Parts: sequence; structure tokens; C-alpha cells
Amino acid sequence: MPSKNDSPEQGDAPSKSEQTRALILETAMRLFQERGYDKTTMRAIAQEAGVSVGNAYYYFEGKEHLIQGFYDRIATEHKVAIRDVLARETDLEARLAGVLRAWLDIATPYHEFAVQFFKNAADPASPLSPFSAESEHARVEAINIHRQVLAGATKTKVPEELRDLLPEMMWLAQMGLVLYWVYDRTEGRERSYRLAERSARLTARGVSLARFRVLRPLVREVHDLFTDFLPGMTNAVPDPAKEKKEKKDKAGKTEG
Amino acid sequence: MPSKNDSPEQGDAPSKSEQTRALILETAMRLFQERGYDKTTMRAIAQEAGVSVGNAYYYFEGKEHLIQGFYDRIATEHKVAIRDVLARETDLEARLAGVLRAWLDIATPYHEFAVQFFKNAADPASPLSPFSAESEHARVEAINIHRQVLAGATKTKVPEELRDLLPEMMWLAQMGLVLYWVYDRTEGRERSYRLAERSARLTARGVSLARFRVLRPLVREVHDLFTDFLPGMTNAVPDPAKEKKEKKDKAGKTEG
Repeated sequence: MPSKNDSPEQGDAPSKSEQTRALILETAMRLFQERGYDKTTMRAIAQEAGVSVGNAYYYFEGKEHLIQGFYDRIATEHKVAIRDVLARETDLEARLAGVLRAWLDIATPYHEFAVQFFKNAADPASPLSPFSAESEHARVEAINIHRQVLAGATKTKVPEELRDLLPEMMWLAQMGLVLYWVYDRTEGRERSYRLAERSARLTARGVSLARFRVLRPLVREVHDLFTDFLPGMTNAVPDPAKEKKEKKDKAGKTEG
Repeated sequence: MPSKNDSPEQGDAPSKSEQTRALILETAMRLFQERGYDKTTMRAIAQEAGVSVGNAYYYFEGKEHLIQGFYDRIATEHKVAIRDVLARETDLEARLAGVLRAWLDIATPYHEFAVQFFKNAADPASPLSPFSAESEHARVEAINIHRQVLAGATKTKVPEELRDLLPEMMWLAQMGLVLYWVYDRTEGRERSYRLAERSARLTARGVSLARFRVLRPLVREVHDLFTDFLPGMTNAVPDPAKEKKEKKDKAGKTEG
């Protein structure tokens, strides 16, 4: 089950500031759902949350940043929800299916909101798009999850040259699932859950084909096409040099 | 250049009835662009076109059907526009790039309309979606174009088992380009034209990999995933069993 806590990593009680931030976010999400994203003003959010407008702007620069806060929250809840499945499963398909299912579980309460909100997020140039520079934080978190999915799939050999590309492609496939889910009207989003299973199976098959050397240039080209034409993608690839350095800095800590 | 004639296949002058139909369609497209799709009524279209409301409904059952008429017109113009490139080029990449470029050329005058119209068409359950049952006619026409693209690519060997799937996948890729184009704000949609080139190159590469037997099940699975989860796709694939049967029936054979 996902934690409802805003910072589940820490055992400490949330500070007053964290509480206010969470309250504003909570209120905004409720108003977005009740009145629609376009019609909800920062002023109305502040009023409903019982804080000054200045205070609301102190925590969130604008409505777009509230949505980013919402993305971050989903990302955090997702990270918690998948701990078990990632600890237990070593098969790529099972790991990926678990991760996608957990996302659908967490997103359930927001489905109605997502439907009306989608017209703002569909435009890749919008700061609300999952591909925007503004969404980078949530996107990097989400791509990191796929990195973990892949890294812990013990039977799956991933060629070095694809190790950074595949998690991004898997995340792109997840965005396809999210798009499908937005328009899914079946009871309990049953078809989205089925698509998650199918998509996991297909991805696992696709990744296993990466052992054929002849295919790798194609994978790279598909990836390059996405990075060249989607605004935020180029930012999403972490600089491997930088990553290595961070790992070294962290050395000495216990591994999970 | 695309023909402005509604039925360019025939040499005859359009009948009175065809002229009225075209006039209503023309008027509707203009009003959709001026006032937006949602705010334009059949009554307003009839009035502007100088026909009775009953007459407008005689030609088009409703606004959705006007959009279908618009899709059909684009499909028809596209078919005419690509004759030269398909007659001239024998290379898959060049053929596909020509077809995609021609589509972008034809769609140019409708870009602004497409942007505001897209929120209605993005929902796969909407009759306006390119995946809907209602859009089947335009979709089948568009997929047939890709069938021609592939069939005339003399250097490209397409395995029998993928011959019906690939044109649909190529059309799906074209839908990706259309989605990109809707949100493309560059001067003259310059990036969309570049994406068309890249996409043609990548598709040609992908198709050439189909010679590797090990990949074919994956292509089939990707295709099956789309047909199982997009509403109109199953209608677009001709049933191979049925096709074979028809061929056999024609040949006077009895075996099943």
C-alpha cells in the first residue's frame, strides 16, 4: 500500500512548513477536481487552505508548480509502493508488471481529474507535460524506477550500450499506458490493468532481443528520435560521469 | 499539388448533389475554424451555406459526420498528391518520406483548426478519433496508401506473414507524426517535416530488419497489442483467413 505521508523516506514527523505545503497541495488537488484546473486560481486555493495568498506563492510559484508537486507526490508514493515487488521478483516481466500495476493503483483516485486535466498536459510544450523541463524532477524519478526494474532483473543481460537508453524507453511505454488509462472508461480501469500486463510482457521480450547485436542501432535510433523531438527527454538522461562520481561520494553506505 | 476536386478519380463535372455536399462541408470547415468545433451548430452551418437545416442533415447526419467528410477529403487529396512520388520512387524510405511530406503539405491550411479540434479527437472512444469505427473509411484509405508504399518498394523484401501488419504499423507511426504536428509551433511546421524524414528512415530500417526471423513474433505482438487495445484497429485488418478463402473460392478450390 502506498504511504500517505509526504516524505515516507524519513521517520521524523513532518515540520510545520512541510505540513503547510502538504495542506496547500491537498487543497489545490481538491479544487482542481471540483472546479477544473483552468477555473481554479491561486487566490481560491489559498483561501480554501486558510493561508495568505503570499504564503501560497511562497510554497508554489503558480498552478503549474502545484501540478509538479502533485507529480512528485505520485512519484514518491510509487517508489514506496513498489519496494516489495522489486525486492521479491527477479524476472523482468514480473518486476515491470508490478511497477505498472502499482502506478495504476496509486493513480486511481485521480482518474476523473486526469481526464479533464489531460488537455493541458498533452501539449509537449506545456510545463504540465511529462516531457517538459518543469517536470524533470518527477520524470527523472520515474525513469530511475525503470532503471531499478532493469538492474534487478537477474536473468536479463542488458548490453552496456543500451543500459541508459532502455529505462527511458520503458518510461515512454509507461507514458503510453498513462495516456490509455486517461481515456479508459472500463469498470475499475480493468483494461488498463490488462494493458499493463501485456506491455510488461512485450517489453521483456523486446529487451531480451537486445542481445542481437544487429538490433542495437535501431534501438538507439528510436531513442534518438524521441530525444530529438520531445522537449524534456535530453535532460532526462543522466550524465554517466556525474553518476559515477555520486556513487563514489556515497561509498561506505550500506547497499539495498 | 493536391486536386481541389472532391472526386478527382472521375473526369465528369460534379453533380448538383455533389456540389451541395461540398458546399456544406466547406462552410462547416470554415465555421469550425472561425468559431470552434464545439460552438458550431448544424443550424448555423446550414444557414451560412444557404441550405435548409433538413437539407444539411440529409447530407450529413451530424457534426461528427462532417468531420468524417473532412477526413475523407484529406484522404482523397492525399491519394492524388502522392501519385507522382509513388510512380517515381522505388526505395522504401523515399516513398514513405514523400507520402508523409505530402500529408503535411495538404494538412497545412487546417493546422489551427486541428489544434483546437484535437481535444475532441484524442479520446479513442470519440467518433472523431482516427481509431473510431466512424473513421473506418478514412483509416482504411490511409492504411491502403501504406500498403502501396510497401508493395512498390522493389528492393524491400517483406515476409508474407508481415505483409498485412506492416502497413498498419506504418499508419500508426503516421498518427504519431500527426500528433506531433498538431503541437508543432515552428515556422512552416519545419520540425514536423524533419520528423517525417527521420520517421521514414527509421521505418525503412525497421522493415529491413523484418528479414530476421527471430524478430517477427515481436512485430506481431506489438501489432496485436494495438489491435486489442485500440477500438477501430481490428476492423482495419482484413481477416487473412477470409481473404484466403475468397481467393480459393475464386479459383474454384474446395479445401479449407
